[in-house]
Amino acid sequence: MTRPAGPAGASVALLAGGGDFPIDLTRILVARGESVFVAALDGVADPQAFPGAEVRMMRLGQLGSLLDELRRRRIGDIVMLGGLPRPSFGALRPELATLKYLPYFARAFRGGDDHLLRRVVRFFEDYGFRVHGPAEIAPELAAPLGPLGSLRANEVQRELFLRGFSLLDALSPFDIGQAAILADHRVVAVEAAEGTDEMIARVAELVARRRLRLDKRDGVLVKAPKTGQDLRVDMPAIGPQTLHNIARAGLSGIALRAGQVLVGDRAGLGRLADELGLFVEGVA
Amino acid sequence: MTRPAGPAGASVALLAGGGDFPIDLTRILVARGESVFVAALDGVADPQAFPGAEVRMMRLGQLGSLLDELRRRRIGDIVMLGGLPRPSFGALRPELATLKYLPYFARAFRGGDDHLLRRVVRFFEDYGFRVHGPAEIAPELAAPLGPLGSLRANEVQRELFLRGFSLLDALSPFDIGQAAILADHRVVAVEAAEGTDEMIARVAELVARRRLRLDKRDGVLVKAPKTGQDLRVDMPAIGPQTLHNIARAGLSGIALRAGQVLVGDRAGLGRLADELGLFVEGVA
Repeated sequence: MTRPAGPAGASVALLAGGGDFPIDLTRILVARGESVFVAALDGVADPQAFPGAEVRMMRLGQLGSLLDELRRRRIGDIVMLGGLPRPSFGALRPELATLKYLPYFARAFRGGDDHLLRRVVRFFEDYGFRVHGPAEIAPELAAPLGPLGSLRANEVQRELFLRGFSLLDALSPFDIGQAAILADHRVVAVEAAEGTDEMIARVAELVARRRLRLDKRDGVLVKAPKTGQDLRVDMPAIGPQTLHNIARAGLSGIALRAGQVLVGDRAGLGRLADELGLFVEGVA
Repeated sequence: MTRPAGPAGASVALLAGGGDFPIDLTRILVARGESVFVAALDGVADPQAFPGAEVRMMRLGQLGSLLDELRRRRIGDIVMLGGLPRPSFGALRPELATLKYLPYFARAFRGGDDHLLRRVVRFFEDYGFRVHGPAEIAPELAAPLGPLGSLRANEVQRELFLRGFSLLDALSPFDIGQAAILADHRVVAVEAAEGTDEMIARVAELVARRRLRLDKRDGVLVKAPKTGQDLRVDMPAIGPQTLHNIARAGLSGIALRAGQVLVGDRAGLGRLADELGLFVEGVA
């Protein structure tokens, strides 16, 4: 099997966390005629949500028997996608077959989610698997170049989001800079540890308290990966909730680095953007 | 009269807004033997709070008669210091003597506080006055080089705040970057429109919700002016409340650009830092 262009009948294992993205990916792969094996993370992924795929529930602590199963099925290609609860080392409950791999992860747990995921990638690679990014396997999951709906940014909005991308570039060496909000001719919010949704809520609150004016509806959210972010396991993403949040905050739209930010169901998100009067645009 | 080293008996006008800084400055100038005329902004500055100075209350709308009074007193040097309420154009209530100067300010009101203050500076300069920064006139109002109290940053904290200053430098071209919080080996918050106190509150909340761990008390606040910020009318500042806030958030200290961030009463702030177990350090 060769990737990223998977031929019909090819086998891929999806390690599925929560949310719609793993479901969207499975739908795309099944429609393409691929046979998909889903290892659905217990407690976050719904095993009923992957029609056309073979599904097995697993805990994080069952990586050992998952490895065995992938070998038995002769699956060499893996995609990891979906939300993870912040795991505690205790909650792993490792089975016997996983215990011997624990040294891979013990240290990673101290470094936060990112480190843990990078460790999992390395674990599979060390055991001979290929780990692919979701947008490598299914580019249609990521923001395309151009608008998702029918609206496009106007000149003022465009100038703002270009400045926003420059800002994110400048922040990148500091291991932050996935998102920012620009409005009223300036940068009004920069995301760090709080996450995109909270940053949007902050701007909404500044507007509600009249500390910020968005009369002209020129406010934009920009979102991009950081330099060096491993797009195989850690792509930035937006979804319907992001659109609802920015509409509620009085912003006018979203600019995304094309190909590098997950949007999931493009058509559905484009329709929602039109309903809410927002532009959602992929930018090179 | 020559500035910044004001000889005894020299005359300076202080246009005083709210807060302790104008009071601190007056105390320093009076102790130095200078005669100080305070134009105290009605509604924010307490006219009783400037012992040793001549005080006159004024509204923003009375710039015209202030100008006349400064000329009558032959005062050529002005300092503007203290908090301003966000003024509305209507609340100006310009007196007759001010009406002719309104074109200076009408446009500035649309650009926010910064623009307004820069306009006021230009107004006085155009009419032959010299506008000085508070730290030019009284360098002891700003952060010194080195610690304010008895604690100094340790190596981990120092590495974090140096990275923080690099971050603020990188943000400067985007007209933000007055403050950031670093902790747990990374940047956890960047200030934009919300202001320093709200950024600190956000970090405190992330800690309370266990989305951020500050076990090692290595978290630091960094604060500096943006490049091009007019330090005559718009210096960044910290005060006792800042220290209380960062102690409450579980941070370990504050690093300030020496000479460029107002601290007001250095000795008092140093004692408070010691009480709260914080370092507060000026950095070149």
